[in-house]
Amino acid sequence: MSRFIVGKHFTGILLLIATLGATQAVAADSQATLESLKNKALNDDLSYQIVESLTTEVGARLVGTPAEKRSVEWAVNKMKSLGFDKVWVEESEAQLWQRGDLSASIASPFAHPVAALALGNSVGTQGKTLTAEVVEFADLAALQAAPEGSLEGKIAFVAYKMARHKDGHGYGEAVGARVVGASEAAKKGAVAFIMRSVGTDTNRFAHTGVSRYADGVKKIPAVAISNPDADLLQNTLKRGKPVSFSLTMSASGPTGKTTTIANVIGEVTGASKAAELVTLGAHLDSWDVGTGAIDDGIGVGITLAAGHYISQLQPRPARTLRVILFAAEEIGLYGAKDYVQKHQDEMSQHVIGAEWDFGNGAIYELEPGINEAALPAMREFAESLAPLGVSMANSNTAKGQSDMSALGEAGQPAVNFNPDGSDYFDYHHTRNDTLDKVDKQALKTNTAIYTMFGFFATSTSTDFRPRPAS
Amino acid sequence: MSRFIVGKHFTGILLLIATLGATQAVAADSQATLESLKNKALNDDLSYQIVESLTTEVGARLVGTPAEKRSVEWAVNKMKSLGFDKVWVEESEAQLWQRGDLSASIASPFAHPVAALALGNSVGTQGKTLTAEVVEFADLAALQAAPEGSLEGKIAFVAYKMARHKDGHGYGEAVGARVVGASEAAKKGAVAFIMRSVGTDTNRFAHTGVSRYADGVKKIPAVAISNPDADLLQNTLKRGKPVSFSLTMSASGPTGKTTTIANVIGEVTGASKAAELVTLGAHLDSWDVGTGAIDDGIGVGITLAAGHYISQLQPRPARTLRVILFAAEEIGLYGAKDYVQKHQDEMSQHVIGAEWDFGNGAIYELEPGINEAALPAMREFAESLAPLGVSMANSNTAKGQSDMSALGEAGQPAVNFNPDGSDYFDYHHTRNDTLDKVDKQALKTNTAIYTMFGFFATSTSTDFRPRPAS
Repeated sequence: MSRFIVGKHFTGILLLIATLGATQAVAADSQATLESLKNKALNDDLSYQIVESLTTEVGARLVGTPAEKRSVEWAVNKMKSLGFDKVWVEESEAQLWQRGDLSASIASPFAHPVAALALGNSVGTQGKTLTAEVVEFADLAALQAAPEGSLEGKIAFVAYKMARHKDGHGYGEAVGARVVGASEAAKKGAVAFIMRSVGTDTNRFAHTGVSRYADGVKKIPAVAISNPDADLLQNTLKRGKPVSFSLTMSASGPTGKTTTIANVIGEVTGASKAAELVTLGAHLDSWDVGTGAIDDGIGVGITLAAGHYISQLQPRPARTLRVILFAAEEIGLYGAKDYVQKHQDEMSQHVIGAEWDFGNGAIYELEPGINEAALPAMREFAESLAPLGVSMANSNTAKGQSDMSALGEAGQPAVNFNPDGSDYFDYHHTRNDTLDKVDKQALKTNTAIYTMFGFFATSTSTDFRPRPAS
Repeated sequence: MSRFIVGKHFTGILLLIATLGATQAVAADSQATLESLKNKALNDDLSYQIVESLTTEVGARLVGTPAEKRSVEWAVNKMKSLGFDKVWVEESEAQLWQRGDLSASIASPFAHPVAALALGNSVGTQGKTLTAEVVEFADLAALQAAPEGSLEGKIAFVAYKMARHKDGHGYGEAVGARVVGASEAAKKGAVAFIMRSVGTDTNRFAHTGVSRYADGVKKIPAVAISNPDADLLQNTLKRGKPVSFSLTMSASGPTGKTTTIANVIGEVTGASKAAELVTLGAHLDSWDVGTGAIDDGIGVGITLAAGHYISQLQPRPARTLRVILFAAEEIGLYGAKDYVQKHQDEMSQHVIGAEWDFGNGAIYELEPGINEAALPAMREFAESLAPLGVSMANSNTAKGQSDMSALGEAGQPAVNFNPDGSDYFDYHHTRNDTLDKVDKQALKTNTAIYTMFGFFATSTSTDFRPRPAS
């Protein structure tokens, strides 16, 4: 089967070869560039060095903290030093939430300290210690099925344990309780909501993540406890006697205040079709408990390294490569939504995009969401990834991971690169999200894949627009 | 090869068969008891249930805490309910140390919170925050080689990383810094001592453990930081600019006060040679950060279950089985030393002993420390363990694990059962020492092995005394 065909551009001279009937010589030349980019990325540790720099020189960068501001400065400097042609910042506002302190324990019949974290947006206990009896529910549905008023004065505890899967779909099955559990419990009269962390590990620390209060429902503290502590609580409850739990926490709840956030954007200008944009995305913010290495330092490393490698090409590809480091992903895609709003006039020029926000594993699948007519070209590109262990999915519904889904909803075609996510939720939103968890070999391979994709998408004459209707 | 020969006893009637020329019928009968005990233990979860009970109903039980007192009550009740004939408590005094609170951070050039724990015995920072420049050392020897006065006003940081080995010998290579590092640093003028945790995991929490101040040397704070934080600190130091570190901690240091500790002892009385003692040991105390499941809840579970199974035998074995749950092992074998002191008149009646204080892994080796004349009998017993994956070591130098080493020094022959300790130092002295880490299958097998050993040693006519000279 023939290799895919890309357009090849010399500065100022467009040499467009747009059909499968193109000369083999040009195809071979672009193929050679792909091979060269692949070898460059596989034999370099630039993306790792970027993750090391971000996690060491900035570290945790929760929205609203001084470190988040420093991360913006870091990103601007890093993009400039990596050879991006244009680098700029787009500011907007996001809700401010502050974690404060937390102390949690099983109070009786057997006293134990409990490893716990406030969920994002949670309120605190107003300077007091809240102690109440625990009522256990197998999952969110069981909590929702509890009779009205049945939790008056009680603490609702959802014990559901997330399942480990290669594609991470256990997260979707577990995360609902985190997002809406507190309000569902409050509707039944509960004074607090605790849940087993959404995570696949067995470490005695909790996984944080965002929660939302329903309008018109009393806001009660929302807390995740570690998997071992959830086991301990369940084993205590099994004994059939009342179990009480204590919480003292100063989380701010929704403050009504906002804080300035900033997307950091860098471009490698296209040689001949500079207005046509290929986007690579990651998010710059992180939760506050680790150093944000995996979520999403790796995405920052991969996309900046890909931009750097492509910036070094002579001649440059036709289209512009735009790397977007989104702000405030963790608390609700604020940066991505702001990007779509600020760039609505330009959205039709977004030819295709891909985000990296799925951790540490080796990519095994390219999943497109593009104009059907462009599928053969994508399939041919995917062949060049086959030696790296990547095959192309049969579906054509990808909208973009994470932030990029907001651009997908605004019409941008997308590719999702799906990795082995088996261990992602061991680290996700925990203090264990640190540099040592980065799989250096997978990072090299994934960097090669994104670099190759960036080159392919900026240099091919194939148009991926419009994205298929959902 | 013939099976080993044991004495078999009916109540009040000694039927001693002491030579290799014994009838096959009796040997076969004892062999049948061993097989029956093995099958009982392999098809039961009593030892697990004991660990579950201890960790759930008591949990962490650091010397000097209310939970430690509750653990003594728990142990007495548990031994009684399991059919031990005599159960008693032997009290003594141990040094009191209190952890207090701790907050640690890299202060500059890049601010990061650091996961840290005070080492046992450490002093605090006297109500102040101590901030000073960090000087890194590869290991304890490098610290000891630093010129006098070279650390004036500095914080010494030993970065040595413990290696993972099946037999756990990486611990011995790493633990010296924990025990003496603070005083070694203080001798050079340091104001605090921090070290990479003695542990093989990559979790962002520290490993605690005991430290000792040298006489006449200024007592400075002694702190372990997590492996990821040690990486972060090293990566920061690599940049070649001064790095400062802050500590605020209220650890008590050596208080001069003592606290009452208690060995809990239970016996299954021997049928005919009740004065001759076979001991099984574990320690009841734990560090305060996990629930003490692996260190040493498992030891409590194995030894109590073995005692229970042997107590159910009719006829009972000749010798008395004494299970000793030692107090205050973690802070320096206080309970074991007290036991030796209180039982010095009786030490010569201690025929043999074995401790379990090495975690979670499957036993692969029986290592004796017995009278050479008894080796053939032990070798024959070891054959019965072969189907469980256990072979006998060629050496004859075992003195007993942990607490039991104090009895070994006092003359008690011993057996060490050596497990695969590859993951033991992932959990050791951390908050991750919780029930879910218990390997249920290995626990059943190890319980079977200890039960079989208990029966063999109480029923054989072989004498293991005197232990070989060291």
